[in-house]
Amino acid sequence: MKILLLSGSFRKHSYSLALLKVAEELLGDHRCELPDLDQLLLYNEDRSGDHRPEAVQQFQQQVDDCDAIVVCSPEYNHSIPAVLKNAIDWASRPAFHSPLKDKPVTIITQAPSLVGGARAQAHLKLVFDSTLSRIHPCHEMMIAEVKDKFDEQLQLSDDHTRKRLIRHLEDFMGFVGSVAGTGENSLC
Amino acid sequence: MKILLLSGSFRKHSYSLALLKVAEELLGDHRCELPDLDQLLLYNEDRSGDHRPEAVQQFQQQVDDCDAIVVCSPEYNHSIPAVLKNAIDWASRPAFHSPLKDKPVTIITQAPSLVGGARAQAHLKLVFDSTLSRIHPCHEMMIAEVKDKFDEQLQLSDDHTRKRLIRHLEDFMGFVGSVAGTGENSLC
Amino acid sequence: MKILLLSGSFRKHSYSLALLKVAEELLGDHRCELPDLDQLLLYNEDRSGDHRPEAVQQFQQQVDDCDAIVVCSPEYNHSIPAVLKNAIDWASRPAFHSPLKDKPVTIITQAPSLVGGARAQAHLKLVFDSTLSRIHPCHEMMIAEVKDKFDEQLQLSDDHTRKRLIRHLEDFMGFVGSVAGTGENSLC
Amino acid sequence: MKILLLSGSFRKHSYSLALLKVAEELLGDHRCELPDLDQLLLYNEDRSGDHRPEAVQQFQQQVDDCDAIVVCSPEYNHSIPAVLKNAIDWASRPAFHSPLKDKPVTIITQAPSLVGGARAQAHLKLVFDSTLSRIHPCHEMMIAEVKDKFDEQLQLSDDHTRKRLIRHLEDFMGFVGSVAGTGENSLC
Repeated sequence: MKILLLSGSFRKHSYSLALLKVAEELLGDHRCELPDLDQLLLYNEDRSGDHRPEAVQQFQQQVDDCDAIVVCSPEYNHSIPAVLKNAIDWASRPAFHSPLKDKPVTIITQAPSLVGGARAQAHLKLVFDSTLSRIHPCHEMMIAEVKDKFDEQLQLSDDHTRKRLIRHLEDFMGFVGSVAGTGENSLC
Repeated sequence: MKILLLSGSFRKHSYSLALLKVAEELLGDHRCELPDLDQLLLYNEDRSGDHRPEAVQQFQQQVDDCDAIVVCSPEYNHSIPAVLKNAIDWASRPAFHSPLKDKPVTIITQAPSLVGGARAQAHLKLVFDSTLSRIHPCHEMMIAEVKDKFDEQLQLSDDHTRKRLIRHLEDFMGFVGSVAGTGENSLC
Repeated sequence: MKILLLSGSFRKHSYSLALLKVAEELLGDHRCELPDLDQLLLYNEDRSGDHRPEAVQQFQQQVDDCDAIVVCSPEYNHSIPAVLKNAIDWASRPAFHSPLKDKPVTIITQAPSLVGGARAQAHLKLVFDSTLSRIHPCHEMMIAEVKDKFDEQLQLSDDHTRKRLIRHLEDFMGFVGSVAGTGENSLC
Repeated sequence: MKILLLSGSFRKHSYSLALLKVAEELLGDHRCELPDLDQLLLYNEDRSGDHRPEAVQQFQQQVDDCDAIVVCSPEYNHSIPAVLKNAIDWASRPAFHSPLKDKPVTIITQAPSLVGGARAQAHLKLVFDSTLSRIHPCHEMMIAEVKDKFDEQLQLSDDHTRKRLIRHLEDFMGFVGSVAGTGENSLC
């Protein structure tokens, strides 16, 4: 399967990127792509349709081609980071018939605080519901106090978080299989 | 007073921009600024602080200098357009001590549909609450079926909408005055 | 199939009840139940478990027995009416293993205003997501200006609304079938 | 001043009630009332207006009489407990002109989990915004892992939480004074 990994942050020391790289590793044989969403221009209807920049066309193609989407994001001001919302907005056209329609999506949020990005997660769910995507029904995956879970080389050092991530992705792969009607999938 | 006008859309035929231009006119003597939020790079912590692009510095200065903020935005996928969320994210640093703290804000949403951007409005309120801004407590201003309210030259042709806008801005100016402790303000 | 109909209002002239009665009619051969949620005591953990009132036990059994849930609700103060939230809270225990888990749910909101209950609908989706229910991914069903859609005898008089309701329920029955893995269902 | 304390839970071992009792103590000379919201019937328009039950009339009078409201609540299914939403719905009539209009409100949530009721807090803010109440702009007060903060007699044993509560209430009293235009208030 092709899995698209969408990050809500692209700074060098991004925990979202670091977590998605662990996810990629755990997803083994599946082909993962992690697009540079910060290379997309801000959405503007005048630039959509035939006037889309090439980076946007490529990204929309990636969304179209993938079998499932794994989002990992921080929370900015109690909502979705602009870089991630922008990518979703580009992918969501034309409304109700976009590449996001019927696409299985799971959402992971992380934060230095205890809240773990719970509010960004709620907003992301409402956004993906509006694009008719298939949101993974699950015990929510939020990683609180994220700084304590990684070492200085930005390697995931917390075993409990790794186990939660494995369980979460396994459960998601099962959901992806059930949506596709092909039965349960495994992690790799 | 200095009023900052923030738009959630920058396409040529933007109803948000058109409504903010009517607001500017109605706000008469007050000095209004309508920054090009689509010129801001996507927020990235690596580019913040001393490494901020000049356009970001200018925008943060505008937020710092203004006495009040009027937002007008469409709703994208049941939430906030990235171009607007991005501007708020830039303006919101450092957290809890940013130029947005204590700043009076009123929110107007518009949509071609009946819903009028109600969900984007809710998310915007939670975002401005997180920045410790002073959100205008008011009968919500949503402009539904916005296309019917303008003529082909993008001039506001609906008198009822104009009256609602006047009433809304008058009420907001009163709120701005009460927050500043200087008593009620008038529209111009 | 057994379909559980949950109303967010129980006054005599309730449009939610009236719409659910139309839904019952449209659902033809399926067995529908419309429980009196206003007969449930306010949720209190001291009254849960073995100390549950009989009405609560009966309601939980109805949730357990049904194949799908159709909610119709007004919006109170931009969120969910207490009578409906209370029923969901009773049905949601024990957390993550309740009768609501994996249950297909569709949500209809109605309002005298243009907004049509969009905000209550958003909150309901987040609530049913938290109970691990299967939320119907669909073009949202909101009935705005509901008073104009009914005659004085509280009969649905607006043909367009009836057609939207038929299309919505047909789409939901298809979703129920796909979740159950039994293929598409029909309305009756 | 008269302060109304609204709890989102009424079981014997309620942490919300326990926290509100600490708040009452900290509020010293101010007259606090903590109404039994679980004695209110479920809101129903047929029972409103002249047909209101006496308990509802009394509660509405308490809301009308108070100078400020302190809410403390758990989160049920990612939203507001029905017992609290029901009380707000009763107090919110008639819409836009209810006793809740212009009333200063601060919100505290607590939870056994890390999230601390962040989502219920967000929904409560949107609800009180819709009633035109004055929501305390503040660093949000959420008490995570609440069980560890109390001893077996349900006495607040965690000093840090007590200090946060004092700081929060002091800040709120300042806000109440600024809304009333009477200048800053003190805790007692």
